Amino acid sequence: MQVVLQTFRLLIADLCQQFGMGHPGSAIGMAALGVALWKYSMKYAPHEPDWFNRDRFVLSNGHACLFQYTNLYLTGYKAMTWEQLLSYHSERPDSLCPGHPEIEHEGIELTTGPLGQGIANAVGLAMATKHLAATFNRPGYDIVNNHTWCMVGDACMQEGVGCEAFSYAGHLKLTNLTVIYDNNQISCDGSVDLTNTEDVNKKMEACGWEVIDVEDGVNDVEAVVSALEKGRDPNREKPLFINVRTIIGVGSAVAGKAVAHGVPFGKDNVAAMKKAYGWDIERTFYIPDEVKSFYSDLPSRGEQHVKEWNQLLASYSNEYPELAQTFKDRMEGKLPQDWQWMIPQAFPSEATPSRKSNSLVVSKILAQVPTFMVGTADLTPSVNLTYKDYEIFNPPDLVPISGAKGSYKGRYIHYGIREHVMAAIANGLAAYSPRTIIPITSSFFMFYLYAAPAVRMGALQKLKVIHVATHDSIGAGEDGPTHQPVELAALYRSMPNMLYIRPGDSEEVAGAWKVAIEYDDGPCMISVSRHALPQLQGLTKRDSVAKGAYVLKEEKDAHVTVMAVGAELSFAVNVAKELDEKHGIKARVVSFPSHKLFREQPLSYQREVLQRNVGIPAVIIEPYVSLGWERFADAGVNMKGFGHSLPGKYIYNHFGFETDSMAKRIGGFLKDWKAGNIGRGEFVEL
Amino acid sequence: MQVVLQTFRLLIADLCQQFGMGHPGSAIGMAALGVALWKYSMKYAPHEPDWFNRDRFVLSNGHACLFQYTNLYLTGYKAMTWEQLLSYHSERPDSLCPGHPEIEHEGIELTTGPLGQGIANAVGLAMATKHLAATFNRPGYDIVNNHTWCMVGDACMQEGVGCEAFSYAGHLKLTNLTVIYDNNQISCDGSVDLTNTEDVNKKMEACGWEVIDVEDGVNDVEAVVSALEKGRDPNREKPLFINVRTIIGVGSAVAGKAVAHGVPFGKDNVAAMKKAYGWDIERTFYIPDEVKSFYSDLPSRGEQHVKEWNQLLASYSNEYPELAQTFKDRMEGKLPQDWQWMIPQAFPSEATPSRKSNSLVVSKILAQVPTFMVGTADLTPSVNLTYKDYEIFNPPDLVPISGAKGSYKGRYIHYGIREHVMAAIANGLAAYSPRTIIPITSSFFMFYLYAAPAVRMGALQKLKVIHVATHDSIGAGEDGPTHQPVELAALYRSMPNMLYIRPGDSEEVAGAWKVAIEYDDGPCMISVSRHALPQLQGLTKRDSVAKGAYVLKEEKDAHVTVMAVGAELSFAVNVAKELDEKHGIKARVVSFPSHKLFREQPLSYQREVLQRNVGIPAVIIEPYVSLGWERFADAGVNMKGFGHSLPGKYIYNHFGFETDSMAKRIGGFLKDWKAGNIGRGEFVEL
Repeated sequence: MQVVLQTFRLLIADLCQQFGMGHPGSAIGMAALGVALWKYSMKYAPHEPDWFNRDRFVLSNGHACLFQYTNLYLTGYKAMTWEQLLSYHSERPDSLCPGHPEIEHEGIELTTGPLGQGIANAVGLAMATKHLAATFNRPGYDIVNNHTWCMVGDACMQEGVGCEAFSYAGHLKLTNLTVIYDNNQISCDGSVDLTNTEDVNKKMEACGWEVIDVEDGVNDVEAVVSALEKGRDPNREKPLFINVRTIIGVGSAVAGKAVAHGVPFGKDNVAAMKKAYGWDIERTFYIPDEVKSFYSDLPSRGEQHVKEWNQLLASYSNEYPELAQTFKDRMEGKLPQDWQWMIPQAFPSEATPSRKSNSLVVSKILAQVPTFMVGTADLTPSVNLTYKDYEIFNPPDLVPISGAKGSYKGRYIHYGIREHVMAAIANGLAAYSPRTIIPITSSFFMFYLYAAPAVRMGALQKLKVIHVATHDSIGAGEDGPTHQPVELAALYRSMPNMLYIRPGDSEEVAGAWKVAIEYDDGPCMISVSRHALPQLQGLTKRDSVAKGAYVLKEEKDAHVTVMAVGAELSFAVNVAKELDEKHGIKARVVSFPSHKLFREQPLSYQREVLQRNVGIPAVIIEPYVSLGWERFADAGVNMKGFGHSLPGKYIYNHFGFETDSMAKRIGGFLKDWKAGNIGRGEFVEL
Repeated sequence: MQVVLQTFRLLIADLCQQFGMGHPGSAIGMAALGVALWKYSMKYAPHEPDWFNRDRFVLSNGHACLFQYTNLYLTGYKAMTWEQLLSYHSERPDSLCPGHPEIEHEGIELTTGPLGQGIANAVGLAMATKHLAATFNRPGYDIVNNHTWCMVGDACMQEGVGCEAFSYAGHLKLTNLTVIYDNNQISCDGSVDLTNTEDVNKKMEACGWEVIDVEDGVNDVEAVVSALEKGRDPNREKPLFINVRTIIGVGSAVAGKAVAHGVPFGKDNVAAMKKAYGWDIERTFYIPDEVKSFYSDLPSRGEQHVKEWNQLLASYSNEYPELAQTFKDRMEGKLPQDWQWMIPQAFPSEATPSRKSNSLVVSKILAQVPTFMVGTADLTPSVNLTYKDYEIFNPPDLVPISGAKGSYKGRYIHYGIREHVMAAIANGLAAYSPRTIIPITSSFFMFYLYAAPAVRMGALQKLKVIHVATHDSIGAGEDGPTHQPVELAALYRSMPNMLYIRPGDSEEVAGAWKVAIEYDDGPCMISVSRHALPQLQGLTKRDSVAKGAYVLKEEKDAHVTVMAVGAELSFAVNVAKELDEKHGIKARVVSFPSHKLFREQPLSYQREVLQRNVGIPAVIIEPYVSLGWERFADAGVNMKGFGHSLPGKYIYNHFGFETDSMAKRIGGFLKDWKAGNIGRGEFVEL
């Protein structure tokens, strides 16, 4: 065994030495954990990395990525060739060994790196298993029963998102989740006790976890394996936390020191390691035959796992043909053909909060299409995402004081007041297998700032998650500026792959959901209002939402295009009318629900909608700050600072969004425009 | 006592009933806590709300703001008149009773509302006291010894930022901090056990807190007072957590129910409450004389506190005249006059990472001006913010494994891997008293997304915090897209009051710090590079940074203005040269360190710099996404998606930031421009 551990450690040291970059220390300290996981404990299939029922492994301490890459190589993942392993930190843009594990690559479940995210992702993966198992397994047919293993470092234990995840996973009693804590007590600044002296085990127990200690995680592979085996114990009632003492950079001169974390050890130190092991100090990247043979059975073991599972699935299909068909459709990420027809064709004409429109549009889909799992960060009464006969996702034996029982079959998730972990868990649910589960999260738009790091990770990974952000704009009202997201849209409009949509009424909400459900390149956020919005029936068009912006009201010989979006869409219509009636100004009206979708349109369409190229200036009305609108508009009625605590009916006027005031300012701007006072490309704040 | 509690509860119920809006439940449940705090336990002075040594009170569950407003009224804060109290949720924009407590108003220490922030703020306040006490107190002269009291609700306990704060405060042994947990076990979705079943007391103990239970927090004022008194116990070695069982909306028909949280109880229910108390059901907003007299001694008690403290300060000034002068300067937020001269006048000419420039610029100021407290989220070796003889802020009796001892006098803060709480604690440090402590935080720029909710709260409150964000842009390199902040600048450039600056070399870093230290309207973020940058000596000008953008290189009869910023500033210089030499195109060069500062310049200056109004198009080079640049540029060489894991020396080329490629594309754009192919206001991605 020692030679296996030594080989692994020296490989890591050499890999970092190669280009003088990388994170050697933790990976080296975790050598024994790797052997225990990949050789003994995990169920996986190197030849079929996406085997549906494989155990999931998440490296939350993603900087230790060499730990994973090297194990993928040793255990026979085909894409991870020797050349690929050597490409870590090389100039190759097609390297499968980026600085943190990335979901695109074989054998990697999720992209990690920002610390603590991985724990939450793992919770999502384990929830997915629990849910699919509860939904599809039948006596004798555990077709979904994979385990989720998550490695965490000292840093992950400190991050808030990790704390939220631990608390929630303990509550959920995720017995199919094992977290392995690489407890080396070293972080960048020095020893962990410089900043963290909590009793970790006690804290984890308080959070509802079973805790096991492994005293020697450096060499005692057997102890680790035996701890991991407890993870699979069918009688366990809690998720398992294994606190493994390791030594960062073990075997090197910097063992146990912070400097072992993020810099190569240096040529001499690596040579000294080799010498201490009795190895040839000149030989680099060496894998002895006995080590190769140690790992050689894994590919065939993987094939056996897949074969057995396929057989199980075949019998299951015989015994439960209909259920098995549903299961296969879910595996393939197929939605039922008829989901589109569940969207109402027409809506009530009275003023409706778009959060309610949202419910009108999706509640039937949510109720009837089991692919969706809907959740909220404790805003059930506000976000309007419950649906007929919804069942809560909770441990079946939990009887809350409020009486609302659930089960793992439930698809409505009470995340608690934990926005960040909600979005990160949703990433895990989505990553379990493409479109097998489509998670929907919800909260006030403002609190998607708490969730932003996880939303970003979803965007980076192109994970299909739909976020429903309610109470957008200053219309959130009396809750005040802490709840009024004047600048947050800039983040989501600028985030690659992220589809941020602000629909203006029920009709546009319908269009937004069609786009959201079909969009496959990342997360979508549907941003809706708290307060009632006029329904612009006959003007708004659901199918036009997909184009990002469209002409709501054309006007021949127009002097100006007035554009608005979302909760304030009707403002543009009112202002255009006022301009016509009181100022003799003809205005076209454009609805602009999504920057991204509009930018993807051909230039010809963009010009047709905006008409700036033929000399008609465009004005945007939106009570967010203007940043980003300069691309589409020449002037804007926007927020210039934070909001204010005022009830909804007063706040728009307070900030100058009354129709007559806006019309006057736009009129003034047009005079300046005609007089040539406005330079090309200049944007005027009205 | 019962009449006091009843009066308080009915006032809250009436206040919410008045306009049919508000959060009555928690405030009503917390009535006894209010009496215990304001009548018995807290040291404060209604006539002098900003008395330096007052106890600080933070309402982390900010939606329960009526709890605080009503107590401010009852205890005699002058600004909180009867009319003001009645203005809660009215149409008055000058109401002192916004939907969440706001720092601008008398008696409010910090704006709260986004849950969990308040806990972290309170930790910052308590750290400020510890630090000032350790620095200025002398035997017999406890001139700074105030206590910090923080109310939290069930939600605050779940938020990640709260978890981070608890863990760190326990580590710091903040004996001057008491957290009072309004444990009503109800949140919006129902009973808390729907989503959280952790053993809170055990978890808090594990985090290093002393825990006291109060079983009847509804009526047993005496038990609460006795628990609070333990908060002041000078022999305590840990921060104190008081777990107080309360009942949301107690006394009403919705007592103990989620619906009591955020909606008024309704006329009949309020009447029923009054009836049950034996009160006149028609009478609203009634305060019996005995209640008035119950609170009547508080103003004079406050005057006495201030008087005694002033006397103490006078003797202290006699005995320690020099120290007292320093203390008074700190109280007044005065920086020593000579800080500006500590900034070097010249810098080495060799390529320098701007994170290192940053150190060259501020390390002397940090070492010599005690106003600054510097911290990092575990990136000491990366952010380069240590300074000569720096001392760590840590409990004096803590001896970490790494040996690095500290004390409360220390001004270097190891926040751990807790970016969010770092920024939130910094807000607390800054809010203790204006400019008495100026906190500096630091991390990789990307991880200011984790910290963003707290950075925003600092901006909203105009708190003077300086954030040093290193490893900005794709230059972060091999760490990959999880660490490359392509879209984050859009958030900080759009955030009101936030001053985001990307300096281009050491000279501009010097300018950035001058601006940052003088800026008084909110936080500043200085965004610097990991990798070495050419020093554009003779071109860059420190004093021009204050203008946001300036001409780096003028050119007569120019065809184009090439603009760049921060780590890529030299790209513009190189591209201009290439355009001239290879394409016969004359280019002006503009450095653009800050959108906000530039937007604040007169239009005449903006036009002088950009010259777009005289027909010269502007092109921006920045490896962030383009959003926001459309205001200043006609075209851009920007990122179109997320980054990639590649070492720094390869990544710029990978994304098309080679000089020749950029010059070619700019040349192509200029042809299109001349040919009139680009519509007015259109922005072209090159």
